[in-house]
Amino acid sequence: MHTTSVAIVGASGYSGLELTRLLARHALVRVAAVTSDRWAGERISARLPLDGPVGALAYLPLAESHAVDAELAFLATPAEVSLELAPRLLARGLKVVDLSGAFRLLDPASYKPWYGFEHTAVPLLAEARYGLPELDRARLAGARLVTNPGCYATSIALALAPLLKSGLVSAEGVTVTGLSGVSGAGRKASEDYSFCEVDEDLRAYRLGKHQHVPEIEQTVARYAGACGPISFTPVLIPMKRGILSTCVLRAAKGAQQADLAGALATAYQGEPFVRAMAADKVQVKDVVRTNRCHLGVQLDARAGAAVVVSAIDNLVKGAAGQAVQAMNAAMGWPETTGLDLLGG
Amino acid sequence: MHTTSVAIVGASGYSGLELTRLLARHALVRVAAVTSDRWAGERISARLPLDGPVGALAYLPLAESHAVDAELAFLATPAEVSLELAPRLLARGLKVVDLSGAFRLLDPASYKPWYGFEHTAVPLLAEARYGLPELDRARLAGARLVTNPGCYATSIALALAPLLKSGLVSAEGVTVTGLSGVSGAGRKASEDYSFCEVDEDLRAYRLGKHQHVPEIEQTVARYAGACGPISFTPVLIPMKRGILSTCVLRAAKGAQQADLAGALATAYQGEPFVRAMAADKVQVKDVVRTNRCHLGVQLDARAGAAVVVSAIDNLVKGAAGQAVQAMNAAMGWPETTGLDLLGG
Amino acid sequence: MHTTSVAIVGASGYSGLELTRLLARHALVRVAAVTSDRWAGERISARLPLDGPVGALAYLPLAESHAVDAELAFLATPAEVSLELAPRLLARGLKVVDLSGAFRLLDPASYKPWYGFEHTAVPLLAEARYGLPELDRARLAGARLVTNPGCYATSIALALAPLLKSGLVSAEGVTVTGLSGVSGAGRKASEDYSFCEVDEDLRAYRLGKHQHVPEIEQTVARYAGACGPISFTPVLIPMKRGILSTCVLRAAKGAQQADLAGALATAYQGEPFVRAMAADKVQVKDVVRTNRCHLGVQLDARAGAAVVVSAIDNLVKGAAGQAVQAMNAAMGWPETTGLDLLGG
Amino acid sequence: MHTTSVAIVGASGYSGLELTRLLARHALVRVAAVTSDRWAGERISARLPLDGPVGALAYLPLAESHAVDAELAFLATPAEVSLELAPRLLARGLKVVDLSGAFRLLDPASYKPWYGFEHTAVPLLAEARYGLPELDRARLAGARLVTNPGCYATSIALALAPLLKSGLVSAEGVTVTGLSGVSGAGRKASEDYSFCEVDEDLRAYRLGKHQHVPEIEQTVARYAGACGPISFTPVLIPMKRGILSTCVLRAAKGAQQADLAGALATAYQGEPFVRAMAADKVQVKDVVRTNRCHLGVQLDARAGAAVVVSAIDNLVKGAAGQAVQAMNAAMGWPETTGLDLLGG
Repeated sequence: MHTTSVAIVGASGYSGLELTRLLARHALVRVAAVTSDRWAGERISARLPLDGPVGALAYLPLAESHAVDAELAFLATPAEVSLELAPRLLARGLKVVDLSGAFRLLDPASYKPWYGFEHTAVPLLAEARYGLPELDRARLAGARLVTNPGCYATSIALALAPLLKSGLVSAEGVTVTGLSGVSGAGRKASEDYSFCEVDEDLRAYRLGKHQHVPEIEQTVARYAGACGPISFTPVLIPMKRGILSTCVLRAAKGAQQADLAGALATAYQGEPFVRAMAADKVQVKDVVRTNRCHLGVQLDARAGAAVVVSAIDNLVKGAAGQAVQAMNAAMGWPETTGLDLLGG
Repeated sequence: MHTTSVAIVGASGYSGLELTRLLARHALVRVAAVTSDRWAGERISARLPLDGPVGALAYLPLAESHAVDAELAFLATPAEVSLELAPRLLARGLKVVDLSGAFRLLDPASYKPWYGFEHTAVPLLAEARYGLPELDRARLAGARLVTNPGCYATSIALALAPLLKSGLVSAEGVTVTGLSGVSGAGRKASEDYSFCEVDEDLRAYRLGKHQHVPEIEQTVARYAGACGPISFTPVLIPMKRGILSTCVLRAAKGAQQADLAGALATAYQGEPFVRAMAADKVQVKDVVRTNRCHLGVQLDARAGAAVVVSAIDNLVKGAAGQAVQAMNAAMGWPETTGLDLLGG
Repeated sequence: MHTTSVAIVGASGYSGLELTRLLARHALVRVAAVTSDRWAGERISARLPLDGPVGALAYLPLAESHAVDAELAFLATPAEVSLELAPRLLARGLKVVDLSGAFRLLDPASYKPWYGFEHTAVPLLAEARYGLPELDRARLAGARLVTNPGCYATSIALALAPLLKSGLVSAEGVTVTGLSGVSGAGRKASEDYSFCEVDEDLRAYRLGKHQHVPEIEQTVARYAGACGPISFTPVLIPMKRGILSTCVLRAAKGAQQADLAGALATAYQGEPFVRAMAADKVQVKDVVRTNRCHLGVQLDARAGAAVVVSAIDNLVKGAAGQAVQAMNAAMGWPETTGLDLLGG
Repeated sequence: MHTTSVAIVGASGYSGLELTRLLARHALVRVAAVTSDRWAGERISARLPLDGPVGALAYLPLAESHAVDAELAFLATPAEVSLELAPRLLARGLKVVDLSGAFRLLDPASYKPWYGFEHTAVPLLAEARYGLPELDRARLAGARLVTNPGCYATSIALALAPLLKSGLVSAEGVTVTGLSGVSGAGRKASEDYSFCEVDEDLRAYRLGKHQHVPEIEQTVARYAGACGPISFTPVLIPMKRGILSTCVLRAAKGAQQADLAGALATAYQGEPFVRAMAADKVQVKDVVRTNRCHLGVQLDARAGAAVVVSAIDNLVKGAAGQAVQAMNAAMGWPETTGLDLLGG
């Protein structure tokens, strides 16, 4: 059977490592190259419990990423790096799945305020397909450039989109608190993310300024027709991986608990990776190391609010697993290929 | 110097232990009795690094609590136990500081829906003074029965009250996510709170049904004049102690960041235990093992929202420390007595 | 292709859950029954991310375990339960892999002092084959009853056996400290294992009395010819899973670092699951969620000591993974079948 | 009352912070200066919950440390920095309590192999008094230069010294595993100590090479008459603070459990900070945030071993608290002054 050759660029970051794990076992691809400055020259088997040909591959320097010999490249790199690499790889005929934010926003003017850089590959923005199959499957088939959603964005857009579409809640006044494990900040030599500074602590950060905000609004608006500005507060949590988001929506007059729960259940019926349940049954530990999103809604009739709780693993459904799922969709393969993870 | 004799009822719970630590060093009181079924017969010195006369005290069975020989009793007991004990102790002439919810709500009809029991000491509800000095200091002087605020309630009422009073935000549509360390659930032999079930996990619970909701609304309304129904979602966090609350308010048209920050700063100017700062500087680790509340507000002009972040130690400012502070206020002592904690 | 039908008895404990994960993906078996009182009546899919026929299986009450319809049963039950069940299942013609200690010790008289019960199935002790393939592979082929090693025993026997056999260290005066994550204590509603009591704490337990001691001595003596009494101190560590053991041996006169390292490397050359490396490169995070054991030895010439550091995941190589590996060996299948885990 | 003015050099490290907390409340001293490059220019009150004159002090650049205006200086600096600063401060007439290893070893030739530098102030080695009052109280009175013990060294020397002196165990063949929370590594921007790399992991390090080994041997030999070379294996534990050491000794023929326990109890009778108990009652959480050491011994008659378990807080009894205790002893003050900590 033909297998598609893939390269993983930025393979030593937490998302890159997770991608390597997943792709090593994916039946339809062959890992052909991995790049990382941190581990350049080392074999994969020194870092992951992988034997055989994948384990024997050596990490190449990041500078050689543009020249990797593969049919498809995953970019697990900072947005600025992806912005420079993606056009070069596409020009060489590779397909690209980019895990950074470099191509997520349709409006070129949004990059400066939210990401801090001017976009230098504007024509690609229209071409890039957003890799969240549950909300935008049709556009993924045959994609040449997939822009993989952010971790918070995945968790929150999946929670909001069906309810806003249902009309059972208002598109205005949405407030979200997002709780993320520390791997969401990436692999870093930083005092701020040292064990002693993070353990037994909580802190909110980038209040109202997180770059996933416009991505969520754009995604939800595309799916649901409209989405007002969202107030989003991310908080750093002393755990390695996982995101739990609590999203508070204004319930429409007369909306009942059964209606709200039904809207979620219907939207995700048949989806292999999204499961609707009671809001207080949603737990990070049930989704960690899987490509799943668990979510549930609870009407607070007193307060006129509908609260959606949503959990994912930031490194899987929030990054590497979703990238594999999106590749599968783009290639026309079953979306679950290589993603039968058992958690734990 | 005369010292007031105090009893600690329910001294082996996490709040009771913290109370014992604090009161053992309080210059104006003498710990005269501690009760606990769990440790009945053991000396305090077997459980806490306390030598001298306090360390030599033995825990009495909880059933002897009503007969303790003291001038003032702290009740660190479940609400149902406090409800039964407080009237008996008051009748014997003791002052009572109750850390449970038994006397927090003014409306007797609220206990059944929020606490699950019918109130059996209704006349005491009007007499009980709410022990949150920063918001209700005047009524505490001379109190015979202090009802100590809930942990979430402390964190959230301190965050909301000044802003609602300022008129810079709406009293309607307030949404709060509260993040609490596990000691907030009390000392328990429960699979749900076992290390393996809590570590590396997050879960929301009692959505829209937490018993602190009416307490917060009552407290804020008394201070600010009005408070609409609050949507509150508590989340269990894998850490021992500490609460971080993120409170989202609708900002009034034209409200500026400086106005909002000023309202908080002004309200707490001169307060020894509350400190206003930038919202992204608020961290649990800076308040843990202190009686402090750190809080800050950030305007999200895009979303028309003001986000207040507030941190306390649930066992100190959220329980034992606040109880000591309220006792100090009730007795006419400097509120900081016995509360010069250094955190860490 | 014929698949062997297997039952998992005690499937809701941490080892039972891990077994379910592994066996659900094992190409040569079919999970036919799972028993658990805790979750009786629930489907597996409510507890694990398993769809399809395995996910649709319902947990049976533990009392029905003796009657399960399968060719092979895994017992993830307390030793007393296994002691009663194993003979009944064997009598019905099932093969049995027992994860408890019920059949680990050859000497019937050892059960009373180390396990607290009199053995009631003594004839099975001679028949049971010890499921540690790396040290005792030959005896596993065709086994009808496999007794799966203890978690500490696995970690420590793998560390000690090759060095004692090499003669480079003394068989006397072996001292071991074993550090275990909390899942080693099993799933429990116990104050002692609650998050607040375990987090940020360390405690040694069962000093000199742990039931794995005679198992280690028996295993090492069988492999190496002799093993003096071992001093073993287990310590509870605030993490979910993983064991790191530090084993200190008296180095023979003239033994060199290269000799010691060579003895380990040679012993495990070609083993798919044991990897020798520098002692300070051994880390729990590299073996967690894999069936691997990483180990290394460091000569301390000043002190005349050889220190072996050994890491496993207590639930995989220390329990469920090893049980699968031993089943594979007993059935004549490749030992790695179903164990290509990627950790993380 | 006269208070002694003290300076804290290196005040932003974890030991320096803890010193600041303790000295701010010490009745007989006045914090006159704090130095730190990290926080130079900031006030203490920005970093610690300290109001009043101490809180108002600003951190000075480290380069000004040699010129601080104080009667006594605590050096919470790397050994190389202390080595350079201590002579200059002593020459200016200050007393010095050095928390580094710069003056701990009596033999100048030991510094190169264990610390990696040549000692440049050899005459001070004979003058420096070792700040472990329980083992060497007499020599502390009037000390001009106190060399504060290492954290592991404190925990282990207190465990070993009385037993070796008793003759109930051998001075040869001592093996120790030391388990330390991450603050023992200091405040660092390092990938190796980031939350994601440390959480849920264990690793041994510096096997047989830790610089506390010669310090322990020197201290125990001075107290007990002899101490053979110790095999010491330190392990990094995912918690913020605390050390648990397991020390295995060869029991003399005929030594009984009661003899061993009696030797510990007798040695520390009347000591305010050391408490002997059953070995399996020793827990880090009971000593954390106190200046206490809890220890206990268990005879393993089968293995001919005596196992001592010892717990301290590495930042208090292992650093800052011990430094205050030693200052108290050197100044002729009650040793417990400023150290009535309540843990938690």
